[in-house]
Amino acid sequence: MANYIEPKVLKGFRDFLPDAEIVRRSLIENIENSCRSFGFVPIDTPVMEYAEILLGKSGGETEKQIFRFKDNGERDVALRFDLTVPFARFVALHRADIVFPFKRYHIGKAWRGENTQRGRYREFIQCDFDIIGSDSVSSDFEIILLIRTVFKNLGVDVNINVNHRGLFNRFLTHIGQSEKSVEILRTVDKLSKVGENKTRESLTELTGDTNAQKILEFIGAKGNFTEVLDRITELSGGPSAESQRLSSLHEYMRDTCEDTECEPFVLNPSITRGLDYYTGVVFETFLKEMPDIGSVCSGGRYDNLAGLYSKEKDSISGVGTSVGLDRLLAALESLNKLPHVNRCKTAVACVDGEKSGQYQAFAQKLRKEGISCEVFTDPCGEKNLVKQFVLAEKKGFSYVIITDGDSSVITLRDLAARKNIDTNISGIIEKLRENI
Amino acid sequence: MANYIEPKVLKGFRDFLPDAEIVRRSLIENIENSCRSFGFVPIDTPVMEYAEILLGKSGGETEKQIFRFKDNGERDVALRFDLTVPFARFVALHRADIVFPFKRYHIGKAWRGENTQRGRYREFIQCDFDIIGSDSVSSDFEIILLIRTVFKNLGVDVNINVNHRGLFNRFLTHIGQSEKSVEILRTVDKLSKVGENKTRESLTELTGDTNAQKILEFIGAKGNFTEVLDRITELSGGPSAESQRLSSLHEYMRDTCEDTECEPFVLNPSITRGLDYYTGVVFETFLKEMPDIGSVCSGGRYDNLAGLYSKEKDSISGVGTSVGLDRLLAALESLNKLPHVNRCKTAVACVDGEKSGQYQAFAQKLRKEGISCEVFTDPCGEKNLVKQFVLAEKKGFSYVIITDGDSSVITLRDLAARKNIDTNISGIIEKLRENI
Repeated sequence: MANYIEPKVLKGFRDFLPDAEIVRRSLIENIENSCRSFGFVPIDTPVMEYAEILLGKSGGETEKQIFRFKDNGERDVALRFDLTVPFARFVALHRADIVFPFKRYHIGKAWRGENTQRGRYREFIQCDFDIIGSDSVSSDFEIILLIRTVFKNLGVDVNINVNHRGLFNRFLTHIGQSEKSVEILRTVDKLSKVGENKTRESLTELTGDTNAQKILEFIGAKGNFTEVLDRITELSGGPSAESQRLSSLHEYMRDTCEDTECEPFVLNPSITRGLDYYTGVVFETFLKEMPDIGSVCSGGRYDNLAGLYSKEKDSISGVGTSVGLDRLLAALESLNKLPHVNRCKTAVACVDGEKSGQYQAFAQKLRKEGISCEVFTDPCGEKNLVKQFVLAEKKGFSYVIITDGDSSVITLRDLAARKNIDTNISGIIEKLRENI
Repeated sequence: MANYIEPKVLKGFRDFLPDAEIVRRSLIENIENSCRSFGFVPIDTPVMEYAEILLGKSGGETEKQIFRFKDNGERDVALRFDLTVPFARFVALHRADIVFPFKRYHIGKAWRGENTQRGRYREFIQCDFDIIGSDSVSSDFEIILLIRTVFKNLGVDVNINVNHRGLFNRFLTHIGQSEKSVEILRTVDKLSKVGENKTRESLTELTGDTNAQKILEFIGAKGNFTEVLDRITELSGGPSAESQRLSSLHEYMRDTCEDTECEPFVLNPSITRGLDYYTGVVFETFLKEMPDIGSVCSGGRYDNLAGLYSKEKDSISGVGTSVGLDRLLAALESLNKLPHVNRCKTAVACVDGEKSGQYQAFAQKLRKEGISCEVFTDPCGEKNLVKQFVLAEKKGFSYVIITDGDSSVITLRDLAARKNIDTNISGIIEKLRENI
């Protein structure tokens, strides 16, 4: 048996100390509440699946990054690298038990053996919400509205950039470049990373001078939603089902806008999302105060989610999105907009260790009123009161209660003001309620 | 690329469909709120660690059950099989950043390649809470009080069986059997599983007739807390630090009791907890209405938690417990005492697809009032209203709102009563608030 083992965590993995974890959980709770308010319901799936299932549709990059191994029963298994593939498998397996349209959210960890030098983590939390079993534009809209609501409830302003992959494809067909659509989409997707010149170069190489110019004109269309829509409709050969869909989307957006709230919705024809499973509306979300960190919530409409795992012929299409929790958390921290956390701020001092039961009895009274209250145990004793004040300050507390348990006169130590207030239990409840 | 992959989950792993997941999350939230009300703070650790760290102190059984593999960097890694070992590593690593006494809770998944035939799962949620860096009996008491509070807040009555491992050891020394204490403890720990006769047989084999009789007398002591304490104090050779500790614990319990609330605390000398890292107080918790399912929350006091991962000589002792979430969930379900869940119960019907924006605008008004509200998208149309009522019933909803968005007259469909009520937005808010 070992006598000393160095305590360390794996590269790309992280411990969360209480301050960080409290904030992260609070952020998750906030997002979850937004989802619930729209009637979305949670699911859970195993973190580990048959590797075959997780890798089914993926290319080489995923295979290289996935944590894959043989379990004790020699099964070829792997840790999930996102929540989308397990969701597809889940839907195929439980199709008969699901009421469609199915609006689900799923918040859980996923793992990728990423290059940690790029500031990426190998263990991260994904937060996905999707509507499946609905082709309607109302569903596209609901996901976008839910994104807006999530960020509004977090107190941050966003631009939600929307586009329609189908309209872009129609445009490519119109200019005779539909065969190269996958490569063109991938090139366009990198625009914001590599800049216009480099994109023009790549596009020229792919499609020639004239087409590159046309593509740049399409993806560069500027103006308000209607102006951009009119322009790209024209460039793609006139009105179509796709342009009509964007138009309806815009109409719904306006119907839910109050005053300046329409602002978040931007029609941005350069948004394509590189992943080729998107077929309809796509979107990316940028923080108004920190657009440079990239999209904090991206997604789109896809066809036939569970196709790979289904023998049934009728496909289940859907629309959904994923919040980048790590990136968002970092951004909220820089912006000083971390969600408000209702932390414990009060402790009952330990003046006499023999009275622990009475201190706890007192604390229980506060807890019953919804006020969190710690009871100090060490160091105990009247001579250690100052040490207990210091301990309370280290914990970020505001108050220490000094009581002998029975007495109706209680001293409340206001740590910031460095003064004692003589009061009673109702006084304390009132004071703590207004301050916490 | 595959064309069809059978959707299946690994043996011992489970999907959670919304109904089950909502309940599970609600149970976790409830437990978490109890922990928070005592000032306990959450942490998180990676699900994967160096195998060496996780296996450090474990015997062969753990090694056989653990999910262990080589990652892409050829590191010998494993999935955590509990939250205690990672916590020990966490404390050793972050010792300088932790304010002691440290009261933390941790709720997360753990994995063991258990034999699934015994109704065990290979993926399960652990829920641990501990106080470390305190030797005081007040901390022992706080953990026990928190257990009581957790179950009280869940609305279930429990018996918390308490014992002191040190007092049992003192007794064994008193009868000259201290050298066999580990084997005796393990035998006694199985008492409730194998019965008294079998235990007597094993003890006789281990220690001889007379000693077996004495041990059975000790662990079989009956009566109220004081009576049992007096008896085992006498059997262990008279008052000691350990008996005094149990006496203080009992005093604190009484100080926080109101009326019949003292009932949950039982001094049960047969509780020893098989794991040999417990050194002081140990406890097991049984549901009064379903004692046979076994302990739903067990733990105790241990010395030198982080010793294996620390070069420092001063040890960190603590006291803590773990809630068996799966067992508890199953029991609450049988008892029909699953925690109340505030689910979405209302949908806005889709009468005209073009009005989705207006339906959402209406729903947003309810959401702002704290009322969850889904907006139906498919099937849409006035002729599909009955289908939408059926859909709402399938989802377990109570109401469907029929509105054209603008109008101040709105129809509220009461699904259970099968009748329509003409009302307005304030009427709806009032109605939904009182019913949900």
